Amino acid sequence: MITTTLHPGKDGAGVVKRTVLPGGLRVVTESMPTVRSVAVGMWVGIGSRDESPQHMGSSHFLEHLLFKGTPTRDALEISAAIEGIGGEINAFTAKEYTCYYARVLDEDLRVAIDVLADVVTSSLITGEDVEAERGVILEEIAMHDDDPSDVVHEQFSAELYGDTPVGRPILGTVDSITAVTRDRIAEYYRRYYLPTHTVVSVAGNIDHERVVAMVAAAYERAGALGGDASPVPPRVSGPGVEARSGTRVVHRPTEQANLVLGTTALTRTDDRRFALGVLNAALGGGMSSRLFQEIREKRGLAYSAYSYTSALADTGQFGIYVGCLPSKIDDVLKICREEVLRVVADGITEEEIVRGKGQMRGGLVLGLEDTGSRMSRIGKGELVFDELLSVDDLLGRIDAVTPEEITAVAAEVLNRPMSLAVIGPYDEDRDFSAVLAG
Amino acid sequence: MITTTLHPGKDGAGVVKRTVLPGGLRVVTESMPTVRSVAVGMWVGIGSRDESPQHMGSSHFLEHLLFKGTPTRDALEISAAIEGIGGEINAFTAKEYTCYYARVLDEDLRVAIDVLADVVTSSLITGEDVEAERGVILEEIAMHDDDPSDVVHEQFSAELYGDTPVGRPILGTVDSITAVTRDRIAEYYRRYYLPTHTVVSVAGNIDHERVVAMVAAAYERAGALGGDASPVPPRVSGPGVEARSGTRVVHRPTEQANLVLGTTALTRTDDRRFALGVLNAALGGGMSSRLFQEIREKRGLAYSAYSYTSALADTGQFGIYVGCLPSKIDDVLKICREEVLRVVADGITEEEIVRGKGQMRGGLVLGLEDTGSRMSRIGKGELVFDELLSVDDLLGRIDAVTPEEITAVAAEVLNRPMSLAVIGPYDEDRDFSAVLAG
Repeated sequence: MITTTLHPGKDGAGVVKRTVLPGGLRVVTESMPTVRSVAVGMWVGIGSRDESPQHMGSSHFLEHLLFKGTPTRDALEISAAIEGIGGEINAFTAKEYTCYYARVLDEDLRVAIDVLADVVTSSLITGEDVEAERGVILEEIAMHDDDPSDVVHEQFSAELYGDTPVGRPILGTVDSITAVTRDRIAEYYRRYYLPTHTVVSVAGNIDHERVVAMVAAAYERAGALGGDASPVPPRVSGPGVEARSGTRVVHRPTEQANLVLGTTALTRTDDRRFALGVLNAALGGGMSSRLFQEIREKRGLAYSAYSYTSALADTGQFGIYVGCLPSKIDDVLKICREEVLRVVADGITEEEIVRGKGQMRGGLVLGLEDTGSRMSRIGKGELVFDELLSVDDLLGRIDAVTPEEITAVAAEVLNRPMSLAVIGPYDEDRDFSAVLAG
Repeated sequence: MITTTLHPGKDGAGVVKRTVLPGGLRVVTESMPTVRSVAVGMWVGIGSRDESPQHMGSSHFLEHLLFKGTPTRDALEISAAIEGIGGEINAFTAKEYTCYYARVLDEDLRVAIDVLADVVTSSLITGEDVEAERGVILEEIAMHDDDPSDVVHEQFSAELYGDTPVGRPILGTVDSITAVTRDRIAEYYRRYYLPTHTVVSVAGNIDHERVVAMVAAAYERAGALGGDASPVPPRVSGPGVEARSGTRVVHRPTEQANLVLGTTALTRTDDRRFALGVLNAALGGGMSSRLFQEIREKRGLAYSAYSYTSALADTGQFGIYVGCLPSKIDDVLKICREEVLRVVADGITEEEIVRGKGQMRGGLVLGLEDTGSRMSRIGKGELVFDELLSVDDLLGRIDAVTPEEITAVAAEVLNRPMSLAVIGPYDEDRDFSAVLAG
């Protein structure tokens, strides 16, 4: 058992420590001595991109099943254990990992660790539970399908990445969920939900050694501690994905059209991600951004208009989202296209750089005041990065971004072929190429 | 200028102070010395229920216009001032109040106060801005209309309260927004956006006297300080609203049906609200609640199923929301109806009372760790309550709830006639009375 101090913190706050338990289970903690809550996450480094096409949605299905029961707790006992002490327990599935988490008062830390460790290590996954939960997942798919802003993002990923593991929907499809068997999901669970693939992260008013002891005890009870296996290293940055240029129109009788226009962007570890962050802030990252000002403030063409970036191990996304009345879509797309071209041609202003950096800096600091976000940062960080940067390191990297780097990353990313996804009351063969060509 | 300490706090944390400035402007603050952020809210005691029917949506329209410009800042300068320092600025309109708020690093407190005071006191509301923003509001209405879970809650209020101020939509309608004039909105602004109707609330790493000085200076610059007017008292608890029994079916070609079944409940100041809170927790307040267990865990009939309570000055709501496949709605409604009747007949168990109290207690404490929620609690509290209870008072009130009080409030509220709103692929004259009666 080796414990390392990753960041020394200050006056006992912000101390980040990491311990590897026998069997390869990692525990990372961050001390926040002035809060009363504690957030606990169990991060498993497996997500929807690890699924074969015919088992699409298995990771997320499994996530649901973990709340159904273990040898010592049924579904009601799992939720009641946390809710009865006023806490929250939940989970989410992403493309590259799955996270189970809880937030409770600090005095209840052990309860949160015990319940989460129990579900992550000892789920029963009975046939009966699979059948009941299959209905719930089909309901969740239907619910998402009724939200055009969800659908358009999913359709955009499908268009951009094609029929690849990162292009497929996390929830799966009605067909794949109807078809998947109990044995297939249980096998997936046994193969991947191992201590070597798991990071336990805890942030709040805690003591690292006590957390480690609690986690070790819980895993020991489950027979999941021991052996000399090492943690699996972060998912490697692969060859990446070629940007594709295509348009996908989905007909829906909605009041608004929803669109995403974008392309592939930087991987999670790309050093240019800070420059891209400043660029994104200026282009569509807030109310003072160019897209918001042009589309909403000056023209009143939309309520919601923004750009975003996201990153995986071997690829990333830059996208612009707008929801607008169907009659406005040509005007909106024209503005999006023009603003992208203008940034590629002329970069952004000194003032926008200062503001973009301020926005990233403040967003980072303000976004890390609660235990949940600190827990996420260190848990996800341990799972996906070779090295966990400190908040000060991150602030330094933002400050160091130069105008040249921004211009270079704009030329690199925003010149790539762009894909477009549109949901709205249009014919599915409607051609947007004229307005996109400009 | 009179300053009162409302709550003494402990070790400098949780100190709540209140100052009334000349002209009736109230400033309430809560100290949170260990955080780096500060949240500032400006609460105006005017909302959609103060509108006449033909000007439906004016309060919310006005909220938008306040971000468009003042004599010293245009729209870009308003958002850039806050975003450039990494903060957030936004607003929301409710039925009884409107709130403008910002969250920034503590060193930037003055910027947040200056910008918010500027927009609240000195908005230009130009004809040009009204026209551009009219388009934005119509987009927002269209966006909400595409979200069936939003629509069903609004339709439920309309069914429950009928064509009354509290039954009408906060956003207004396409017709009312298209028709409303610049002069009407400007008049509304001048009449209601007065220091007497406004509470400034600030929570974070602050000093009350410095906050008061900053607010006074900003209001002074706007010429909005002075005189001997007193703050307007909280909206009085009126005669209330009779519970209505009716069903409203809205046809939509959605994948899921969305439903709200409920009735009128307690007013904001009703002493029985703590008992109703425990009851609601047991019936549908979380994953361990009866409705979630019956509908989702055991039967797999829905992804989202919960009950809620909300309160206004003179009425309140108790409602059950479920989203389910259209074919499942009769089963779901039957369970809802049965669980309500069962609670009325037999009350809830000892175990559920303990858990419900734990849930409320923990939720209260965990929900007040960030500056935004503390700011909201004291700001809204000052505006709508005669007296701001401390967190300890609230915890005491939750602990004191007896089984008899829960049984009594169940008999009182859950026996009222119930209204039902349904959105889904149904005929609008579909009759749900059999399943509701049965």
